[in-house]
Amino acid sequence: MSIIANTPKPPYYAVIFTSTRTQGDFGYDQVANRMVELAEGQPGFLGIESARDDGAQGLGISVSYWSDLDAVKQWKANVEHIQAQRMGRETWYQSFKVRISKVEREYGA
Amino acid sequence: MSIIANTPKPPYYAVIFTSTRTQGDFGYDQVANRMVELAEGQPGFLGIESARDDGAQGLGISVSYWSDLDAVKQWKANVEHIQAQRMGRETWYQSFKVRISKVEREYGA
Repeated sequence: MSIIANTPKPPYYAVIFTSTRTQGDFGYDQVANRMVELAEGQPGFLGIESARDDGAQGLGISVSYWSDLDAVKQWKANVEHIQAQRMGRETWYQSFKVRISKVEREYGA
Repeated sequence: MSIIANTPKPPYYAVIFTSTRTQGDFGYDQVANRMVELAEGQPGFLGIESARDDGAQGLGISVSYWSDLDAVKQWKANVEHIQAQRMGRETWYQSFKVRISKVEREYGA
Protein backbone atom coordinates (compact mmCIF):
# COMPACT_ATOMS: atom_id res chain seq x y z
CA MET A 1 0.00 0.00 0.00
CA SER A 2 1.36 3.38 -1.03
CA ILE A 3 1.77 6.15 1.52
CA ILE A 4 0.69 8.59 -1.15
CA ALA A 5 -3.02 9.07 -0.60
CA ASN A 6 -5.26 7.40 -3.16
CA THR A 7 -7.61 10.32 -3.63
CA PRO A 8 -10.57 10.34 -6.05
CA LYS A 9 -11.01 12.46 -9.16
CA PRO A 10 -11.12 16.18 -8.22
CA PRO A 11 -12.71 18.35 -7.04
CA TYR A 12 -12.11 17.68 -3.35
CA TYR A 13 -10.48 19.61 -0.50
CA ALA A 14 -6.93 19.60 0.86
CA VAL A 15 -6.04 20.98 4.29
CA ILE A 16 -2.34 21.87 4.21
CA PHE A 17 -0.96 22.00 7.74
CA THR A 18 2.63 23.27 8.00
CA SER A 19 4.43 23.51 11.34
CA THR A 20 7.68 23.79 13.24
CA ARG A 21 7.84 21.94 16.57
CA THR A 22 9.04 23.11 19.95
CA GLN A 23 11.64 20.99 21.80
CA GLY A 24 10.45 17.84 23.61
CA ASP A 25 7.59 15.44 23.00
CA PHE A 26 4.95 16.41 25.64
CA GLY A 27 2.64 13.68 24.40
CA TYR A 28 2.86 14.85 20.80
CA ASP A 29 3.59 11.54 19.07
CA GLN A 30 0.76 9.72 20.79
CA VAL A 31 -1.79 12.44 20.06
CA ALA A 32 -0.56 12.83 16.47
CA ASN A 33 -1.19 9.13 15.87
CA ARG A 34 -4.57 9.39 17.56
CA MET A 35 -5.53 12.33 15.35
CA VAL A 36 -4.84 10.27 12.22
CA GLU A 37 -7.00 7.46 13.59
CA LEU A 38 -9.72 9.95 14.50
CA ALA A 39 -9.60 11.70 11.10
CA GLU A 40 -9.96 8.35 9.33
CA GLY A 41 -13.28 7.86 11.10
CA GLN A 42 -14.67 11.28 10.12
CA PRO A 43 -17.27 11.68 7.36
CA GLY A 44 -15.74 12.75 4.07
CA PHE A 45 -12.16 11.74 4.96
CA LEU A 46 -10.22 10.81 1.78
CA GLY A 47 -6.63 10.36 3.00
CA ILE A 48 -3.65 11.96 4.71
CA GLU A 49 0.03 12.45 3.87
CA SER A 50 2.69 13.57 6.36
CA ALA A 51 6.41 14.31 6.32
CA ARG A 52 8.79 16.03 8.72
CA ASP A 53 12.37 17.09 8.13
CA ASP A 54 14.99 15.91 10.56
CA GLY A 55 16.60 18.08 13.18
CA ALA A 56 15.65 20.96 15.46
CA GLN A 57 13.11 23.25 13.82
CA GLY A 58 12.54 20.72 11.05
CA LEU A 59 9.53 21.69 9.00
CA GLY A 60 6.55 19.35 9.10
CA ILE A 61 3.84 19.17 6.46
CA SER A 62 0.61 17.19 6.81
CA VAL A 63 -1.98 17.30 4.08
CA SER A 64 -5.39 15.80 4.79
CA TYR A 65 -7.93 15.31 2.01
CA TRP A 66 -11.68 15.73 2.36
CA SER A 67 -14.71 15.32 0.14
CA ASP A 68 -16.03 18.84 0.68
CA LEU A 69 -15.83 21.96 2.83
CA ASP A 70 -18.45 20.67 5.24
CA ALA A 71 -16.27 17.64 6.02
CA VAL A 72 -13.33 20.00 6.67
CA LYS A 73 -15.44 22.05 9.08
CA GLN A 74 -16.70 18.97 10.92
CA TRP A 75 -13.13 17.77 11.40
CA LYS A 76 -12.04 21.16 12.72
CA ALA A 77 -14.98 21.09 15.17
CA ASN A 78 -14.36 17.53 16.45
CA VAL A 79 -14.16 17.80 20.26
CA GLU A 80 -11.05 15.64 20.68
CA HIS A 81 -9.43 17.44 17.78
CA ILE A 82 -10.18 20.80 19.39
CA GLN A 83 -8.29 19.69 22.50
CA ALA A 84 -5.35 18.67 20.32
CA GLN A 85 -5.47 22.01 18.48
CA ARG A 86 -5.22 23.80 21.83
CA MET A 87 -2.21 21.66 22.85
CA GLY A 88 -0.68 22.44 19.48
CA ARG A 89 -1.02 26.19 19.92
CA GLU A 90 0.12 26.18 23.55
CA THR A 91 2.82 23.49 23.62
CA TRP A 92 3.83 21.57 20.52
CA TYR A 93 4.18 24.12 17.75
CA GLN A 94 6.60 26.99 17.60
CA SER A 95 4.72 28.18 14.53
CA PHE A 96 2.12 26.74 12.19
CA LYS A 97 -0.09 27.59 9.28
CA VAL A 98 -3.30 25.97 8.07
CA ARG A 99 -4.40 26.44 4.47
CA ILE A 100 -7.73 25.19 3.22
CA SER A 101 -7.69 24.61 -0.50
CA LYS A 102 -9.84 23.10 -3.21
CA VAL A 103 -8.03 20.58 -5.41
CA GLU A 104 -8.89 21.22 -9.04
CA ARG A 105 -6.47 18.90 -10.86
CA GLU A 106 -4.43 15.83 -9.97
CA TYR A 107 -1.93 13.70 -11.88
CA GLY A 108 0.98 11.42 -11.12
CA ALA A 109 2.76 8.14 -11.70
CA MET B 1 13.20 34.07 8.71
CA SER B 2 10.54 31.40 9.04
CA ILE B 3 10.60 28.32 6.83
CA ILE B 4 6.81 28.48 6.75
CA ALA B 5 5.98 30.43 3.62
CA ASN B 6 4.74 33.95 4.20
CA THR B 7 1.88 33.81 1.73
CA PRO B 8 -0.56 36.67 1.11
CA LYS B 9 -4.26 36.78 1.85
CA PRO B 10 -6.11 34.09 -0.19
CA PRO B 11 -7.12 33.31 -2.82
CA TYR B 12 -3.92 31.97 -4.37
CA TYR B 13 -2.78 28.58 -5.67
CA ALA B 14 -0.95 25.70 -3.98
CA VAL B 15 0.78 22.92 -5.93
CA ILE B 16 1.04 19.92 -3.61
CA PHE B 17 3.78 17.58 -4.80
CA THR B 18 4.01 14.28 -2.90
CA SER B 19 6.63 11.66 -3.73
CA THR B 20 8.60 8.63 -2.70
CA ARG B 21 12.22 8.47 -3.88
CA THR B 22 14.12 5.64 -5.52
CA GLN B 23 17.47 4.59 -4.01
CA GLY B 24 20.55 6.72 -4.75
CA ASP B 25 21.02 10.40 -5.49
CA PHE B 26 21.58 10.55 -9.30
CA GLY B 27 21.94 14.31 -9.16
CA TYR B 28 18.68 14.76 -7.28
CA ASP B 29 19.84 17.07 -4.48
CA GLN B 30 21.56 19.47 -6.82
CA VAL B 31 18.61 19.68 -9.20
CA ALA B 32 16.11 19.97 -6.32
CA ASN B 33 18.00 23.01 -5.02
CA ARG B 34 18.20 24.44 -8.52
CA MET B 35 14.44 24.01 -8.98
CA VAL B 36 13.76 26.06 -5.82
CA GLU B 37 16.07 28.80 -7.12
CA LEU B 38 14.37 28.65 -10.51
CA ALA B 39 10.86 28.72 -9.04
CA GLU B 40 11.75 31.78 -6.98
CA GLY B 41 12.50 33.64 -10.19
CA GLN B 42 9.21 32.72 -11.87
CA PRO B 43 6.35 35.24 -12.20
CA GLY B 44 3.70 34.76 -9.52
CA PHE B 45 5.87 32.70 -7.17
CA LEU B 46 4.74 33.21 -3.55
CA GLY B 47 6.77 30.65 -1.57
CA ILE B 48 7.66 27.00 -1.10
CA GLU B 49 7.65 24.54 1.81
CA SER B 50 9.32 21.12 1.76
CA ALA B 51 9.71 18.19 4.13
CA ARG B 52 10.85 14.60 3.72
CA ASP B 53 10.62 11.75 6.18
CA ASP B 54 13.77 9.84 7.01
CA GLY B 55 14.55 6.38 5.74
CA ALA B 56 13.98 4.30 2.65
CA GLN B 57 10.68 5.14 0.97
CA GLY B 58 10.30 8.19 3.21
CA LEU B 59 7.45 10.34 1.95
CA GLY B 60 8.36 13.79 0.66
CA ILE B 61 5.94 16.71 0.41
CA SER B 62 6.71 20.00 -1.32
CA VAL B 63 4.08 22.68 -1.56
CA SER B 64 4.74 25.65 -3.81
CA TYR B 65 2.47 28.69 -3.75
CA TRP B 66 1.51 30.79 -6.77
CA SER B 67 -0.54 33.91 -7.43
CA ASP B 68 -2.83 32.31 -10.00
CA LEU B 69 -3.32 29.35 -12.32
CA ASP B 70 -1.42 31.02 -15.12
CA ALA B 71 1.70 31.23 -12.93
CA VAL B 72 1.31 27.50 -12.14
CA LYS B 73 1.11 26.68 -15.84
CA GLN B 74 4.16 28.81 -16.68
CA TRP B 75 6.16 27.04 -13.99
CA LYS B 76 5.11 23.63 -15.29
CA ALA B 77 6.16 24.71 -18.81
CA ASN B 78 9.58 26.12 -17.81
CA VAL B 79 12.13 24.37 -20.05
CA GLU B 80 14.65 23.56 -17.31
CA HIS B 81 11.80 22.40 -15.09
CA ILE B 82 10.50 20.11 -17.86
CA GLN B 83 13.92 18.41 -17.99
CA ALA B 84 13.78 17.93 -14.21
CA GLN B 85 10.23 16.55 -14.45
CA ARG B 86 11.47 13.97 -16.95
CA MET B 87 14.34 12.96 -14.66
CA GLY B 88 11.83 12.69 -11.84
CA ARG B 89 9.57 10.34 -13.76
CA GLU B 90 12.42 8.22 -15.13
CA THR B 91 14.93 8.15 -12.26
CA TRP B 92 14.26 9.89 -8.95
CA TYR B 93 10.70 9.04 -8.00
CA GLN B 94 9.28 5.65 -7.29
CA SER B 95 5.86 7.27 -7.20
CA PHE B 96 4.52 10.81 -7.09
CA LYS B 97 1.36 12.82 -7.22
CA VAL B 98 0.79 16.45 -8.14
CA ARG B 99 -2.33 18.23 -6.94
CA ILE B 100 -3.19 21.74 -8.06
CA SER B 101 -5.42 23.49 -5.57
CA LYS B 102 -6.85 26.91 -4.90
CA VAL B 103 -6.29 28.16 -1.35
CA GLU B 104 -9.49 29.68 -0.01
CA ARG B 105 -8.62 30.26 3.66
CA GLU B 106 -5.45 30.55 5.72
CA TYR B 107 -4.78 30.96 9.44
CA GLY B 108 -2.00 30.21 11.88
CA ALA B 109 0.20 31.35 14.74
